[in-house]
Amino acid sequence: MRLHPVILAGGRGERFWPLSRRARPKQLLPLLSERSMLADTLARLRGAALPRDTFVITARDLAGAVRDAVPEIPHHHVVGEPVGKNTAPAVALAAWWLRDAGEDAVVAVLPSDHRVEPAERFREELVRAGEAALERGAIVTFCMPPTRPETGYGYIEVGAATAPGSPLATVAAFREKPDLATASRYASDGRHLWNAGMFLFPPGVMLEEIRAHAPEIAELLPALPARLAEDEAALLRYYGAAPSVSIDVAVMERSARALVARAGFAWDDLGSWAALGQGEAAEGSGSNVTRGRTILLDSDGVVAFADGGLVAAVGARDLVIVHTPDATLVCPKDRVQEVRALVARLKAEPGGDAFL
Amino acid sequence: MRLHPVILAGGRGERFWPLSRRARPKQLLPLLSERSMLADTLARLRGAALPRDTFVITARDLAGAVRDAVPEIPHHHVVGEPVGKNTAPAVALAAWWLRDAGEDAVVAVLPSDHRVEPAERFREELVRAGEAALERGAIVTFCMPPTRPETGYGYIEVGAATAPGSPLATVAAFREKPDLATASRYASDGRHLWNAGMFLFPPGVMLEEIRAHAPEIAELLPALPARLAEDEAALLRYYGAAPSVSIDVAVMERSARALVARAGFAWDDLGSWAALGQGEAAEGSGSNVTRGRTILLDSDGVVAFADGGLVAAVGARDLVIVHTPDATLVCPKDRVQEVRALVARLKAEPGGDAFL
Repeated sequence: MRLHPVILAGGRGERFWPLSRRARPKQLLPLLSERSMLADTLARLRGAALPRDTFVITARDLAGAVRDAVPEIPHHHVVGEPVGKNTAPAVALAAWWLRDAGEDAVVAVLPSDHRVEPAERFREELVRAGEAALERGAIVTFCMPPTRPETGYGYIEVGAATAPGSPLATVAAFREKPDLATASRYASDGRHLWNAGMFLFPPGVMLEEIRAHAPEIAELLPALPARLAEDEAALLRYYGAAPSVSIDVAVMERSARALVARAGFAWDDLGSWAALGQGEAAEGSGSNVTRGRTILLDSDGVVAFADGGLVAAVGARDLVIVHTPDATLVCPKDRVQEVRALVARLKAEPGGDAFL
Repeated sequence: MRLHPVILAGGRGERFWPLSRRARPKQLLPLLSERSMLADTLARLRGAALPRDTFVITARDLAGAVRDAVPEIPHHHVVGEPVGKNTAPAVALAAWWLRDAGEDAVVAVLPSDHRVEPAERFREELVRAGEAALERGAIVTFCMPPTRPETGYGYIEVGAATAPGSPLATVAAFREKPDLATASRYASDGRHLWNAGMFLFPPGVMLEEIRAHAPEIAELLPALPARLAEDEAALLRYYGAAPSVSIDVAVMERSARALVARAGFAWDDLGSWAALGQGEAAEGSGSNVTRGRTILLDSDGVVAFADGGLVAAVGARDLVIVHTPDATLVCPKDRVQEVRALVARLKAEPGGDAFL
């Protein structure tokens, strides 16, 4: 089994403003270490897959920054989408391009900007899931037992185990992001898991399923160039014509070949500044979470991020404080979802663009 | 009567960190308008005194920045003290240099970094106090009725009025910064006023009082050069030999020629970021006080200062938030005195100097 990671890095998240900007979205930020989340994602694969077997699909205008962030990946393996069309066209494109990669080829579609740890456990399970996908001709998706009634994630209702004691099971149903009451039920009924958006499959299996369930995408594939980055016009035509739809909706919800692998590693999509704190508090690293140079006197529950400068606080409680050279954000941790309102306000204000 | 303002601008206040730095102390900051507090101070004198009659005494290493801040003052009227020795040596030097300024000359010693408003009222009272100082051969000091039991100010106990209904009165006693119980008594007994540190006197009167009460300073004066900025070595000798003492302690507390003028203008020494808020709230300009570009959503009682960038906050309550290109400060308004602890911490930390 040979893994071909396809890392999806097209996000434009605004939830990490003012650190995240149009030209530097979340996956390019050093949120969990000294390097970008994308570079963390690549490093996490070391030993399970080779950089030369790895692809990154991002937005066209981010391709240069992505290449700089992960220089060990061949330049022509970084694909810049001319227009974002959700995940299905990107996954289909990857399966198409890797269709002749060999009998032992397994594609691993992975997010570029999530927290996954410990890395060793992740690699072990990734390899095991890839082997299962190859053996069974299946599309395996990683799922996590919920630790809270999260309304921001999709869920998968798990069916029967493929064998007694196996972490592999069939899918009973995909569930869209639930309301709080439903999420509370999901979090406690033992049958629902978080859908982490990580898929493993032999390329031919995915292509068959795309042909069966998303023919409007499948019919566009033969017009793609035989090699990556060879024909910009063909890529533009493909993305221009493809529907904007997630791989979950286009294929996974309809496929009889979907299996879930119950993950034993920890996962978080790191959806906000507050999530940065939740993860580390869980690790018991103290009540404040800091990045960069900070001085926090008599402060608790603070997430402080200094991008090249200094955050200094006295008596701060449960606040997110972010310093960048041109902007400072202050927000209670339980209101970080309103950072988007700030970004919206900036978009509407004269001159606000300079901060986006 | 001709006023010769002598503006004392040698402060090194740390309470406005991170905006205030060693090379840009409070008097050079645009805290109350778009220009520096020193420039505000000079502008406030327009119509009462001429720039060419005005002097600024500052620290030697700040002299260049001071000249840039108030270019209308003749360059050689900006005196850079080689070493800070409190106010008495500076006042004595000014009196000495102005001793031949004419029969109608009155020196007005003024702080460079206080809030004083409205300007018109201030000018009227300044001129009236100057005339009184000249007529009576007195040292007149401005005092304000306390509006709160402030422990950070010195007080003056007022004696008898010089005439029924006159704002001029004799001094019963100077009082050091009191404890809170004493300050509460002072604030309500009607006899104690805040000492604003503004003095008016004919130069000859001050020189006589210095000779009488501070001979160790008086004896150094004849060695000063006849003209300003003519002899750096003589200035260095003077400041090297002079005692470090305030004009209040050296002269005012002992002089029988001191009078107080009860001020009708508003005054605040603007001792902290929180004071910035207090003053404006009193003017009813809303619950948040902002400078520079700010977006404050659902926030109350915030003092937000953006130095060339942006402060963005959601749900902030009673906080001071200051953004500078290399540092951000966050602090509850009622704990701004602890900004000094942050500065002390920076002084002690490796590399902390870069932020001071």
